[in-house]
Amino acid sequence: MAQNIRGYAAQSATAPLAPHQFERRDPRPDDVVIDILYCGVCHSDIHTARNEWGGSKYPVVPGHEIIGRVASVGDKVTKFKVGDMVGVGCMVDSCQHCDACNQGLEQYCEEVPTFTYNSLDRHDKRPTFGGYSERIVSSEKFVLRIPDGVDPKAAAPLLCAGITTWSPLRHWKISKGHKVAIIGLGGLGHMGLKFAKAMGADVTLFTRSPDKEEEARRLGADHVVLSTDPKQMEAVGRSFDFILDTVPHQHDLNPYLATLKLDGIHVLVGLVEPIEPAVHAGGLIFGRRSVAGSLIGGIPETQEMLDFCAKHGIGSDIEMINIQDINEAYARMLKSDVRYRFVIDMASLKKEA
Amino acid sequence: MAQNIRGYAAQSATAPLAPHQFERRDPRPDDVVIDILYCGVCHSDIHTARNEWGGSKYPVVPGHEIIGRVASVGDKVTKFKVGDMVGVGCMVDSCQHCDACNQGLEQYCEEVPTFTYNSLDRHDKRPTFGGYSERIVSSEKFVLRIPDGVDPKAAAPLLCAGITTWSPLRHWKISKGHKVAIIGLGGLGHMGLKFAKAMGADVTLFTRSPDKEEEARRLGADHVVLSTDPKQMEAVGRSFDFILDTVPHQHDLNPYLATLKLDGIHVLVGLVEPIEPAVHAGGLIFGRRSVAGSLIGGIPETQEMLDFCAKHGIGSDIEMINIQDINEAYARMLKSDVRYRFVIDMASLKKEA
Repeated sequence: MAQNIRGYAAQSATAPLAPHQFERRDPRPDDVVIDILYCGVCHSDIHTARNEWGGSKYPVVPGHEIIGRVASVGDKVTKFKVGDMVGVGCMVDSCQHCDACNQGLEQYCEEVPTFTYNSLDRHDKRPTFGGYSERIVSSEKFVLRIPDGVDPKAAAPLLCAGITTWSPLRHWKISKGHKVAIIGLGGLGHMGLKFAKAMGADVTLFTRSPDKEEEARRLGADHVVLSTDPKQMEAVGRSFDFILDTVPHQHDLNPYLATLKLDGIHVLVGLVEPIEPAVHAGGLIFGRRSVAGSLIGGIPETQEMLDFCAKHGIGSDIEMINIQDINEAYARMLKSDVRYRFVIDMASLKKEA
Repeated sequence: MAQNIRGYAAQSATAPLAPHQFERRDPRPDDVVIDILYCGVCHSDIHTARNEWGGSKYPVVPGHEIIGRVASVGDKVTKFKVGDMVGVGCMVDSCQHCDACNQGLEQYCEEVPTFTYNSLDRHDKRPTFGGYSERIVSSEKFVLRIPDGVDPKAAAPLLCAGITTWSPLRHWKISKGHKVAIIGLGGLGHMGLKFAKAMGADVTLFTRSPDKEEEARRLGADHVVLSTDPKQMEAVGRSFDFILDTVPHQHDLNPYLATLKLDGIHVLVGLVEPIEPAVHAGGLIFGRRSVAGSLIGGIPETQEMLDFCAKHGIGSDIEMINIQDINEAYARMLKSDVRYRFVIDMASLKKEA
């Protein structure tokens, strides 16, 4: 396995990169160099490590829920100084001039954002490598402040799982008086419960597991509905203003659409496949309902979320692991056997040195 | 064919109703009795006459784009007097107390609206019969004023085809500065072009027929895109704020979704079937796009539309027929051979007397 930076590289199916391609770049004037302390483990890491979405360019260094301390800064960096606790999420750059970027919605950059790993730097065209590593270099525009009052370990998953649920709840202006349902209780779902509750909504968890009720209530659910029970589903017909659907695989949306009120919105944040079984258009038309999608979140809203978390004492529920445990962690994630996010203590990398 | 009212009844597959069931009711205190002058011909008429949606209760008298003059009014009617030019659309009643009704969105009545035909009156439980008839009786709440300045013949299709396109354009606040695309140039599509243009939008027609360009421009299109040409489709990628999809049969939404901007909305008003081929969730997520549905329109917004039409000189493009031509009209509609709506001159009914 190619590893001339001290990082964890996923299985290399192709020839290793030339050494010069596999080095971190020298910092540019607007760059921040970060010593990584913690990195959350996202399903995307598995998909990319295993090339399940296609397009993986090995060696891949996964990881886009990165927390660390600033080690050095370029001459033109103004927002950060050495020693600051900071984070890097799913993106490290974008075009900075399209409509989406101008709105602070860099995730929708019309020229495609530079992702934190398995992407190409838009200036030097070298591969980007993620957070299963000792260090990362990023333009300061894509670095987040981790405020005091947020546990840095528990902040790591906020940078993907957190912002992916925060962004749609905020965009669709969820607040007191709204009835919100979350589908799925995993890395994303548990953050959805916490955020929707903290925003003042009346929150329901849809789950297929009767044994998740106590946990769901601890995390903020006011109600739990067993989606496999037609009676429970019927009882919540036309109930919700908003459904946040975190399920990452194909599933039938139609029973959930029937639980939306007039003008209700069902937002997909986990599914990146064709919507099958098919949505019945009648379920949309007879209630002016919408099915929408939402992708992570922009840099300004990620900072807003982190500040909100500090104020409200919100973090992700995590299980710490060493980098040596990563393959077991992947296996457990695929069985949904994690409450609710693995975070790698990157100090463990030194054991491999 | 059962016909003890002077009306046109679709093919009777079951035993005729008892004579007392097949009479117009005596007017109630809040009722308006209308002598029908004109009735538009909607695809729903065909679906119901032929039981293509199931649930047709024969004999069916279709027709829900009804224009006529007030013949008499009940004691408590305050909005109309004998001789007024009025209209009745797709609904003649609703529960009047649910959230939807309270918002003037009776089409989404939680207890289901009473439809103009093939429905049961919610008070006396007798069947409702539509506008292929000499007369109709409706609560004044569901009767529309036809303002001076609107040609009554051309107003008939406004009551279904018109309001079905008006309502979503208005709900999603289409105005100057928006780029709107209409899919399909039929009864609904041609009204969509007129309304979107009159609201100030930059309007594009998506069509599969190169020969529709001149017509589309006459009706208000600023641009015409041949949806069968991948180059033309690619050229309008990420272009539109809003797509109004009037196509009444299954079709692939994915190429159209790619033409929506960030936060763009694709609204279905014609399709009442499963959405197949499947929508790819990625097309929604990578652009925060939505697929929504919209059903006809409420009574207050229908009146608003009629008043707008009077102000802007808008009517439907119509082809007048006699009731004796209805089967031929149905056949031509199924071949899209009508520009753009048939309207029956109900005086022709007398020829059958």
